[in-house]
Amino acid sequence: IDAGSSTNTPPSPVDKDANIIYSIKHSYAEIRLNRPKKFNAITWQMYGEIGEFLDRARRDTVKFAVITGTGDYYSSGNDLGNFAEIPPEGPEKMAKDGEKVLKKFVASFIDFDKPLIAVVNGPAVGIPVTTLGLCDIVYAKDSATFHTPFTSLGQSPEACSSYTFPLMMGPAKANEILLFGKKLSAEEACDRSLVTRVVPSGNFEEEIESMLKKYSELPPISLRTSKQIIRNTHKEKLHDINIKECALLAERWISDECISAIMKFFQRKK
Amino acid sequence: IDAGSSTNTPPSPVDKDANIIYSIKHSYAEIRLNRPKKFNAITWQMYGEIGEFLDRARRDTVKFAVITGTGDYYSSGNDLGNFAEIPPEGPEKMAKDGEKVLKKFVASFIDFDKPLIAVVNGPAVGIPVTTLGLCDIVYAKDSATFHTPFTSLGQSPEACSSYTFPLMMGPAKANEILLFGKKLSAEEACDRSLVTRVVPSGNFEEEIESMLKKYSELPPISLRTSKQIIRNTHKEKLHDINIKECALLAERWISDECISAIMKFFQRKK
Amino acid sequence: IDAGSSTNTPPSPVDKDANIIYSIKHSYAEIRLNRPKKFNAITWQMYGEIGEFLDRARRDTVKFAVITGTGDYYSSGNDLGNFAEIPPEGPEKMAKDGEKVLKKFVASFIDFDKPLIAVVNGPAVGIPVTTLGLCDIVYAKDSATFHTPFTSLGQSPEACSSYTFPLMMGPAKANEILLFGKKLSAEEACDRSLVTRVVPSGNFEEEIESMLKKYSELPPISLRTSKQIIRNTHKEKLHDINIKECALLAERWISDECISAIMKFFQRKK
Repeated sequence: IDAGSSTNTPPSPVDKDANIIYSIKHSYAEIRLNRPKKFNAITWQMYGEIGEFLDRARRDTVKFAVITGTGDYYSSGNDLGNFAEIPPEGPEKMAKDGEKVLKKFVASFIDFDKPLIAVVNGPAVGIPVTTLGLCDIVYAKDSATFHTPFTSLGQSPEACSSYTFPLMMGPAKANEILLFGKKLSAEEACDRSLVTRVVPSGNFEEEIESMLKKYSELPPISLRTSKQIIRNTHKEKLHDINIKECALLAERWISDECISAIMKFFQRKK
Repeated sequence: IDAGSSTNTPPSPVDKDANIIYSIKHSYAEIRLNRPKKFNAITWQMYGEIGEFLDRARRDTVKFAVITGTGDYYSSGNDLGNFAEIPPEGPEKMAKDGEKVLKKFVASFIDFDKPLIAVVNGPAVGIPVTTLGLCDIVYAKDSATFHTPFTSLGQSPEACSSYTFPLMMGPAKANEILLFGKKLSAEEACDRSLVTRVVPSGNFEEEIESMLKKYSELPPISLRTSKQIIRNTHKEKLHDINIKECALLAERWISDECISAIMKFFQRKK
Repeated sequence: IDAGSSTNTPPSPVDKDANIIYSIKHSYAEIRLNRPKKFNAITWQMYGEIGEFLDRARRDTVKFAVITGTGDYYSSGNDLGNFAEIPPEGPEKMAKDGEKVLKKFVASFIDFDKPLIAVVNGPAVGIPVTTLGLCDIVYAKDSATFHTPFTSLGQSPEACSSYTFPLMMGPAKANEILLFGKKLSAEEACDRSLVTRVVPSGNFEEEIESMLKKYSELPPISLRTSKQIIRNTHKEKLHDINIKECALLAERWISDECISAIMKFFQRKK
């Protein structure tokens, strides 16, 4: 258990147009996805940045971190452009690069050693849903939805959801989501223990702000060591599963099933 | 992860009076218990046949398998006749033989590497309930019930339920079922995550057919590899628990408690 | 699996003013906290006594054990006086002694090899809540509440709750309780699988008595071996986690955060 010694990263001026905005409020770090016109879709570069911001929140003198989105969506997940440009070395190289990026991204969630609170301000698709299994608290606006359409896209679960989802909600409910792509409302997600609490849209920001402010007054070392003792039981297993899931996804990305599904998707959008 | 190469088992004419009917519909295999007058009770021979049909569904070019029952019952479980005839070598031999049959039967569920969907068309008692913990999806008719009266019969949990049930619903709810024999309605089973969804009797067959047809259009290798990565985490543990549960049951079957309970049961039926 | 051989501990006259009363009813052992004026708060000595009574219930010819409280509370948890007197050797000695007492207490729950039923007759705070994760059945009066304010007191989870709570209710719901001290009603605790069933206040004693009487008629060896096969899967892990949790708590007890929180608490009570 590491109670940690924290120093504040020297502040840099906030770029309001940045894809991700990191800020310190009360005594927590907020990591805010900021591409509302693109439904907060995540580019390869953003995966790296989110990971770096999580590492920064570990070092900064903050008691916990919050992840949220700007606009109507939490995040639509993987940016379509991530698979649009095949490098000269071919799709296998792109798959291997993606595997590395994803593995590192998920590992930063597994290793985050302070409480991590997801504030799901709207619909979520793909990895923004599966990473919720690695968060400690999940608040969802009543208009939020949760969708993991892996199978129809020829893909497979990631962010350790193949392990965390069945554990949290039992296999009969988890597989409906992971294997058969059932989309959940906020209420359904809460019933299935993916979401801690559903907050009505009417006063969403105020109620979240009020809760986070209250948590900001809690003793930081207690928060940190308790988070660690809860996470440590599963940590090794989570890293092992992350490696296996990323390896399987790298295969799936260059499979006929996946290439065919993604091509159909692009053709529909024309 | 094994994406598998499948060949279709040469079709044999369907015997409409067979205790179990295996058929291929759309692109899935249906394993249908077919002893409606005996509430689909399972004889020693049927345990072996169900296992063989699961192996066949692994080899055939099907995307997933479905288990269901004919008539008003899903299955009343172990056929009473299974323990009626004590072999010349004595009850210990019968218990040992039963242990082997059960271990192999449960192992075929653990090793089934495509999605396995249980369609619970009516009441279920004993091992038909516990095997649900090894299925991936469970649909239940609203008139279905779920009962595991092990303790009152001097027996103990099987089909890895001693592990899967507490994980899926927490020990406080699992033990009410496994230790104290509480019978669940379909709604209660769904609340406790044993059942994915409850389907009203009115249009049960149509709704199930419609869902299975929709799933039939999903990419098969994605379905298979995702099922495997979800199952693999627990596979070794499940096999270990299966061995331990079967060994305990073999002891329980020849215990005074069990023999006494079964004799009382037969006397009541006279 | 140990079916056990039991002998009855020779009966001693019941001291109606004892802090804990052990009695045998029907065919179960009842361990009743009996300090209603102190909300059944647990002194260092009582931790030891509860452990001894659990060991006694293992040896006595009883089929299961029941833990409950006298009066309006189940238990308010750790007695304030436990930390009031710092020994001559200093607070580190007190923390180490507390660590030993707690470790042994929790280990007696982990090792209890018959069904253990908690009858939560009223509000519960702290370790009376976390030990519920080591019970097999939990009945709660509708007026019961469940509160684990560890973080605000600068402390951390105990009784293996850092492991059992996330498993039973998923991390998103467990952390709201363990990290952020959310207090649960009986209904909420039942929704989250901490409680088996909520029993209305109106006929609480009669309904509980009736259920326990019914369970008293079940075969004892079946009950015992089934409880063991369910518990054994996790036993080694639970002991390991107990050791880690107690070590962390010993550090927390002498931390500035904890000392400061406890001093504030005593000052408020003046």
